[in-house]
Amino acid sequence: MQTFSIGLAGMGNVGAGVFKHLRGNRSLLRERLGYELEVRKIAVRNLSKDRGCEVPAELLTTDWRQLLDDPSIQILVELMGQKQESLELILGAIERRKIVVTGNKALLAEHGREIFEAAMRHNVPVFFEAAVGGGIPIIKTLREAFVANHIQSIHGIVNGTSNFILTQMTEQGLGFADALRQAQDAGYAEADPALDVNGGDAAHKAIILASLAYGFWVPPEKVFVEGIEHLTASDICFAKKLGYRIKLLAVIKADQGQVEVRVHPTLVPASHVLASVNGVFNAMAVRGDVVGDALLYGRGAGQDATTSAVISDLAEAADALSSPRRNLGFTPHSLYGACKPIGECTSEYYLRLAVDDRPGVIAEVASILGRLQIGISSILQPEAAEGEIATLVLMIHRASHAQISTALSQLGALGCVRKTPRMIRVEHFS
Amino acid sequence: MQTFSIGLAGMGNVGAGVFKHLRGNRSLLRERLGYELEVRKIAVRNLSKDRGCEVPAELLTTDWRQLLDDPSIQILVELMGQKQESLELILGAIERRKIVVTGNKALLAEHGREIFEAAMRHNVPVFFEAAVGGGIPIIKTLREAFVANHIQSIHGIVNGTSNFILTQMTEQGLGFADALRQAQDAGYAEADPALDVNGGDAAHKAIILASLAYGFWVPPEKVFVEGIEHLTASDICFAKKLGYRIKLLAVIKADQGQVEVRVHPTLVPASHVLASVNGVFNAMAVRGDVVGDALLYGRGAGQDATTSAVISDLAEAADALSSPRRNLGFTPHSLYGACKPIGECTSEYYLRLAVDDRPGVIAEVASILGRLQIGISSILQPEAAEGEIATLVLMIHRASHAQISTALSQLGALGCVRKTPRMIRVEHFS
Repeated sequence: MQTFSIGLAGMGNVGAGVFKHLRGNRSLLRERLGYELEVRKIAVRNLSKDRGCEVPAELLTTDWRQLLDDPSIQILVELMGQKQESLELILGAIERRKIVVTGNKALLAEHGREIFEAAMRHNVPVFFEAAVGGGIPIIKTLREAFVANHIQSIHGIVNGTSNFILTQMTEQGLGFADALRQAQDAGYAEADPALDVNGGDAAHKAIILASLAYGFWVPPEKVFVEGIEHLTASDICFAKKLGYRIKLLAVIKADQGQVEVRVHPTLVPASHVLASVNGVFNAMAVRGDVVGDALLYGRGAGQDATTSAVISDLAEAADALSSPRRNLGFTPHSLYGACKPIGECTSEYYLRLAVDDRPGVIAEVASILGRLQIGISSILQPEAAEGEIATLVLMIHRASHAQISTALSQLGALGCVRKTPRMIRVEHFS
Repeated sequence: MQTFSIGLAGMGNVGAGVFKHLRGNRSLLRERLGYELEVRKIAVRNLSKDRGCEVPAELLTTDWRQLLDDPSIQILVELMGQKQESLELILGAIERRKIVVTGNKALLAEHGREIFEAAMRHNVPVFFEAAVGGGIPIIKTLREAFVANHIQSIHGIVNGTSNFILTQMTEQGLGFADALRQAQDAGYAEADPALDVNGGDAAHKAIILASLAYGFWVPPEKVFVEGIEHLTASDICFAKKLGYRIKLLAVIKADQGQVEVRVHPTLVPASHVLASVNGVFNAMAVRGDVVGDALLYGRGAGQDATTSAVISDLAEAADALSSPRRNLGFTPHSLYGACKPIGECTSEYYLRLAVDDRPGVIAEVASILGRLQIGISSILQPEAAEGEIATLVLMIHRASHAQISTALSQLGALGCVRKTPRMIRVEHFS
């Protein structure tokens, strides 16, 4: 039986999972694949760290360059995380015509174009199923299963930590800080949770999905990103009353050759499947012009789920070694190419205002929106005690980001509006 | 640009969709695939039928054997439906080393073994993404994305017609006959709906999924099949009260090398995602030992969704022509091989009895179950008018099919039980 040799760079959570499951399900993989996948060398930072599985000492090295220099290594698995060395390693592997498997979403989002230009120059595939959605095969689905489709939209819950936090806020009525603490206690959030809650991680994944769907690498600076840090328990509660759940969504849409890519808290109708995706689970709803609506759901992170994705890429890499393939993991094309400026992106909106509780306030608010040609679809005014600051919740018809931004600043300047207005986008799916 | 030539056998709904979308999204496919997919010949039964798209007359023939005899045809798409000729055509294509793409679930379920033995003998791939779940990429996911996994279970809603009927019964409180009529009016059920409502179609799909997951062709006679024809509005209503929805599920499970495959109405906890899969939509929940829980959701039938699957297989076929591959669509292996006899399959159960409304009845029922070592988890006894026949609903702990069958016949023989007892299986997912 033919053997393919793997160099593993990084042995954190996922790296250890890959090593463990390649051994554990070895006989299954042999039967299904018809060849052997063998880890030949592993680059780690710390030789003596406990990794929860037995690793022969002779496989380990602290010098990742050895993986490049070893000519017997045919497939390089990069799981080192976001570092300058990751890029160096991947580009080095491509130059040496080693197939690359990576789960490095930050690196792909920032350097995808450079990486795939090198891949094409050297005709070497780079696979990255593990970069988005853990065990959910969204990359393969977009690349292969939906190859016949112009992708019209992707709506994704792609960050498990923030989804866990929002689920806790929704189900238990917690504020953001308490829910974050629960996520940290449960091991779902890092000590520094910034990238998860500020939308940065979701943006990396949105960039990868959009790039794959539209055939060009979306520049990170074109992506609008807003996190969940400023969501309040009352926003979640008002949204619920109005028949919505709040989710951190990656929203990707094509519109006449332009692509919009944004990440922000979003009101999702409670009846839509995405609204039921709770806890650390991820899901992506994809709409294609041929396939219609489809949704993929599963664990978005964690050792095992991500390991499953890495091993499926390893199988693909081995296949590509035994019979070279045209698709190198990403195919650029010229049917799309431009991102839509955020100012032109349209959406419906939820608006929450803290206003004086006196007659005439609604008229002042409504006349600002009216002058800006922004339609109101409903107004909710929860009871407030006499003379106190009242809350006004407005649901707003489709308007551009530019329009709503102007409205927000004009509303904020009103005397009767006592705090900075809160705006959350709303997505409908029909 | 290289061109691959396709022979299309059958131009019903899906065949016409394939022809239409290959043309409509031609420039997208050229860019993504790097080659041209060209329909060279189309076998139809009726030359003059209106197919909702323009087809050049010179492509059409009424003789499907011409597709075999034309040496320029490299890929054969079989969409003729369940006929003896379909098998002849597919085997003939394999012998002539034409790659086969088919959506013929009945044929695969009954002749999968024979077809893939021929495929292996001639080293010709046979792709069949369109056979299960329409646009949902469940075949590719099982074959490739989850290659690292021992599949522990698959729970699938794989028949859109019966799911539509159950949805109508649940949401509108309709009886089976009325809901079926609605499905027929909406165009979701054939004039003869037998194969949809009796579980036959779902069983074909269950066989294909189980065979792919476990590496051997499951013999159709080993599959337990029960349809939805006998479900009543009151079962649906009791299930709802107990916190469940009733779905026609394909249940596939591995247990120590043995595989159980069954199709039957099933109580699914209302909180599980499968319970929210409504209307004609399909979904498959897959549990793998590495990936954990994942779910794929989408349109299970219809021209466009199924077309998307056929075209993705065509892309795969063209790839395989330009660089031969090891995986021919199905890989047999020896890690599994036996089906678990239905008598040994275990499940939890919902039991509905029509009983005399008098003291002592529950004791009689409970003592039969007790003697058979069958545990009761709860009893629900809706109010009945004095002296009338009462309803008794029991939720039963895990027991084997053999045990529950004995219990059903003993209960049916009781004097106080006035009608044949109704049993529906219950699936939990934790």
